[in-house]
Amino acid sequence: MHLSELTHPNQLHGLSVNQLQQIARQIREKHLQTVATSGGHLGPGLGVVELTIALYQTLDLDRDKVIWDVGHQAYPHKLLTGRYNQFHTLRQRDGVAGYLKRCESQFDHFGAGHASTSISAALGMAIARDLQGENYKVAAIIGDGALTGGMALEAINHAGHLPKTNLLVILNDNEMSISPNVGAIPRYLNKIRLSPPMQFISDNLEEQFKHLPFVGEALTPEMERMKEGMKRLAVPKVGAVIEELGFTYMGPVDGHDLEELIATFKQAHKIPGPVLVHVATVKGKGYEVAEKDRVGYHAQNPFNLATGKAIPSSKPKPPSYSKVFAHTLVKLAENDPRIVGITAAMATGTGLDKLQQKLPKQYIDVGIAEQHAVTLAAGLACEGMRPVAAIYSTFLQRGFDQIVHDVCIQNLPVFFCLDRAGIVGADGPTHQGMYDIAYLRCLPNMVLMAPKDEGELQRMVATGIDYTDGPIAMRYPRGNGYGVPLMEEGWEPLEIGKGEILRNGDDVLLVAYGSMVHPALQTAETLSEHGIQATVVNARFAKPLDTELILPLAQRIGKVVTLEEGCLMGGFGSAVVEAIMDAEITASVKRIGVPDILVDHAKPDESFASLRLTPPQMAETVRNHFFSKQPSVVS
Amino acid sequence: MHLSELTHPNQLHGLSVNQLQQIARQIREKHLQTVATSGGHLGPGLGVVELTIALYQTLDLDRDKVIWDVGHQAYPHKLLTGRYNQFHTLRQRDGVAGYLKRCESQFDHFGAGHASTSISAALGMAIARDLQGENYKVAAIIGDGALTGGMALEAINHAGHLPKTNLLVILNDNEMSISPNVGAIPRYLNKIRLSPPMQFISDNLEEQFKHLPFVGEALTPEMERMKEGMKRLAVPKVGAVIEELGFTYMGPVDGHDLEELIATFKQAHKIPGPVLVHVATVKGKGYEVAEKDRVGYHAQNPFNLATGKAIPSSKPKPPSYSKVFAHTLVKLAENDPRIVGITAAMATGTGLDKLQQKLPKQYIDVGIAEQHAVTLAAGLACEGMRPVAAIYSTFLQRGFDQIVHDVCIQNLPVFFCLDRAGIVGADGPTHQGMYDIAYLRCLPNMVLMAPKDEGELQRMVATGIDYTDGPIAMRYPRGNGYGVPLMEEGWEPLEIGKGEILRNGDDVLLVAYGSMVHPALQTAETLSEHGIQATVVNARFAKPLDTELILPLAQRIGKVVTLEEGCLMGGFGSAVVEAIMDAEITASVKRIGVPDILVDHAKPDESFASLRLTPPQMAETVRNHFFSKQPSVVS
Repeated sequence: MHLSELTHPNQLHGLSVNQLQQIARQIREKHLQTVATSGGHLGPGLGVVELTIALYQTLDLDRDKVIWDVGHQAYPHKLLTGRYNQFHTLRQRDGVAGYLKRCESQFDHFGAGHASTSISAALGMAIARDLQGENYKVAAIIGDGALTGGMALEAINHAGHLPKTNLLVILNDNEMSISPNVGAIPRYLNKIRLSPPMQFISDNLEEQFKHLPFVGEALTPEMERMKEGMKRLAVPKVGAVIEELGFTYMGPVDGHDLEELIATFKQAHKIPGPVLVHVATVKGKGYEVAEKDRVGYHAQNPFNLATGKAIPSSKPKPPSYSKVFAHTLVKLAENDPRIVGITAAMATGTGLDKLQQKLPKQYIDVGIAEQHAVTLAAGLACEGMRPVAAIYSTFLQRGFDQIVHDVCIQNLPVFFCLDRAGIVGADGPTHQGMYDIAYLRCLPNMVLMAPKDEGELQRMVATGIDYTDGPIAMRYPRGNGYGVPLMEEGWEPLEIGKGEILRNGDDVLLVAYGSMVHPALQTAETLSEHGIQATVVNARFAKPLDTELILPLAQRIGKVVTLEEGCLMGGFGSAVVEAIMDAEITASVKRIGVPDILVDHAKPDESFASLRLTPPQMAETVRNHFFSKQPSVVS
Repeated sequence: MHLSELTHPNQLHGLSVNQLQQIARQIREKHLQTVATSGGHLGPGLGVVELTIALYQTLDLDRDKVIWDVGHQAYPHKLLTGRYNQFHTLRQRDGVAGYLKRCESQFDHFGAGHASTSISAALGMAIARDLQGENYKVAAIIGDGALTGGMALEAINHAGHLPKTNLLVILNDNEMSISPNVGAIPRYLNKIRLSPPMQFISDNLEEQFKHLPFVGEALTPEMERMKEGMKRLAVPKVGAVIEELGFTYMGPVDGHDLEELIATFKQAHKIPGPVLVHVATVKGKGYEVAEKDRVGYHAQNPFNLATGKAIPSSKPKPPSYSKVFAHTLVKLAENDPRIVGITAAMATGTGLDKLQQKLPKQYIDVGIAEQHAVTLAAGLACEGMRPVAAIYSTFLQRGFDQIVHDVCIQNLPVFFCLDRAGIVGADGPTHQGMYDIAYLRCLPNMVLMAPKDEGELQRMVATGIDYTDGPIAMRYPRGNGYGVPLMEEGWEPLEIGKGEILRNGDDVLLVAYGSMVHPALQTAETLSEHGIQATVVNARFAKPLDTELILPLAQRIGKVVTLEEGCLMGGFGSAVVEAIMDAEITASVKRIGVPDILVDHAKPDESFASLRLTPPQMAETVRNHFFSKQPSVVS
């Protein structure tokens, strides 16, 4: 049987180990080909091919439910659950998603994208099952990296307290999150990963006992008691922590040995209560270059399958915002020992790996632990350091209460750098950075800024370091800058709460924030071709808003457009509308941004176009709204 | 020396154990008298009197830093750090705060109010200390309840990975959060609390060894090796989990034995790296009624010190919102087995203890674990249950990402019930429920509602259960209802997104949300006395907003006032302003609510008055804004 003929995972049931190994090879082949062509996550999926096959071989997936954490390792799952023929559309618009989605398949029982959620969701399902008198199996698969996330530990604390609730947790231990793992929990897992399995220890003890000179083969009753006592003492050495937390621990199991995996899962299904199976996997397994460079091949743009080398893009691109951010921060940190960069397991994504290389003492990776990252930063700020918490917009949602409770209420100078703010493209709804303006703007003491390009980003990094009156956050988009000139030093901090006028015109006022400033200028050009002259303001700050600049312009021009790459509800445009209303200015405002919908995965350009956020579309919106009697056309 | 003469905690250094015991008695006396008079937290502080004294006796508090978790147990700390003479002002306006505040004392190194933050903050300070080449001590004191919060576990994972960073964590194990603890971690702690200390086990093993018939006093080298091996096996039995996580474990220590505590802390200060001292304390220690009823005496309104009985209030009050919520939910749950109530360690506060008593199977307490609570609810919702997550507005901030990622993106029908939304009174800034409208309104698929009184709350509970199209949240205030008639059954669900007109008038439109509806009616009465006739709308829903009702009224009347008990930035009023702008209606809007400031602890009436949110004040605001040429006066 070829993988392409497999339309239901239960078809695995009848296959021999040899046949399953063949399926494994076919999964790897398809996985590699697809990612090499379209880009996507590579190492995580290759590491769980056998785990997925073995688990599905032991389950009835018409009834049983498997909850994958994060979802970037679920490509084998997708290929085994009827998505082989669509798999070439991976991460493309209207194609197969890069993460998990309930609406995509009956086998995606819980969506994912962020880490550490699977045990909570699975436990909820297991409790529902028991309340409904059903008896299907529920399994959560979680990585060792995701296990450092607090909510996974909260879930384990709860599940371990419910001995009558059957729940299988499979720990996919590849010793990595995106980067090598951080923390005592991964270190402990590594230790037990390297230990002989528990059976061996007990056997070994018995052997040792036998070889003591005074023992021989026959044991006195006291010796027998003592031997048993020693066994009891010895057994918890492997997986002790997990056993103490109420789980039955099984493992470590070789994650690429199908027979051992199948045998272990079969046994695990028979054990009542919460069970944790510890599976040792190799990220990138079966693709040599990925096994060797586990960070580099976590995810990939299109690459040459034979060499593993990225396919060079047709023309050189300007540096990414992340890169300019990191470069600037490193330069500042070299001369300012107060600066400490903090990442939550996203060293490469945020660019902070550069800080780690250059100034390791001024670099902290806390693991997948955004809550702790924020309050740790607050603690550093208390003692006069300049903590820079570089966390994606979407992941900072995890630290929201800590921002309120530990940073804003205490007015501590923590500098938040929110990468991937706005449209993120192929990663889809779970990763869109849409809400940060709204969820941060409502907090007292918080300053919010966003640069119009990578040059202004440099000045804003300097501004964030310079500002010590309280918390300050900078948002910037995923992707490349505009190629504007960059400086190697001497960035002048911006005045807090001050914007700038970039263009003058009497017909309409465009007030743009961050990544929408350059598009606003292009929009103004298009409007100009239609005889409409626009003033364009680069707001720079969403909070405090530069009302001294904006309000007189709004009063004079009367027609105001706000532009932002974020949710319209409560966002930057709302700040402008609130200010205009508060000042009792008679002006009409059209807010342009992301409406109250989820934005699906697609190329960023496609997302912008479908949201009508390209400059020609925005010019049309402005003309329809203010300069035409006809209603605007929604395509 | 009397406690009142103690102006600096270092004065404890010279005192004998007898003198320290006297100080302990004086602390308890003052603590009890003050709480009996003013109300406040009782059990938590009484449990840590000796712990606090002993720790401070071994530290130099001019240099060393102590970080208390939550802060409700920090009254002894306050009495030992120069606040004895102000302590009678506890939790009163401009008086000593009920939690910790950096601005209140140089000894409050990190503010608190929410649980589980102390280790993160302390680790941040310890890292700052080391980077700055300083060598003071940093200690965090955390309860066993707070240890189930994910962020505390994230911090332990990080700290346990830094063997060179000296950090003392003191586990104040009283077997309780507010209610008895939940989960595998507290169960484990209880197990080791009941174990003999580690020294004893090793000694005991040696004894056992000696009494084996063939051993006697002299050991062969093999025997010696084996004995040592057994010791190594035995030692991790107590505190093994904590040791495996990289901490040196010490304990359990009797938390009311000053001598033992002092000796243990002195020893702990000498051990490098992260150290955890496990202190077994008794909540309410030294006050018999509080020791017996540890839930009831966690916090208290004014009470008779001799009997422990609450001082009855002068006149009977209507039931609290929490009580009406819980009563209604229990009634609905009795006839609907799909309903499951979820609390994060706030059974009594939310009223869900009633559900626990009546329908224990439909009740889940997850411990202090709001993130897990939200995603567990999502998992339950996937399987057709009706999860009701009853979490205070301020604590739901902890589950924000889970609301976005697991509930809203998947559009799952979880019913969030946000108690303590708005002004909370004596608990102060860390507990104010100010931000929920803003942080939830920006999320796609979310429905937001708030009842005008406890009668409408009953209908909204029915509405939330009835609504299965996606997530829905209801916010309601702390405190008592209006005494409106209540029903025992047959609550008719409200139509989603529909408000109601409560009063007609042509001069001004008051659009009020939730708890501000009745005050809006009173405001309208006051305005009427000044010849201004107001229409009053009960919006019921902040999202979707009833634009069909509100916009034509706004168009016709032209002057609009929004009223909400929450932050103005991005809140309910912003929703109204956005809708008016979007519809290109010419209307002027005055938003009334909580401005962009922190609201300090005070009686709720005092907070309302200082925020100018009483009906006479709001009537004045409306008159000044719309019906007078004079600028409004800010007092």
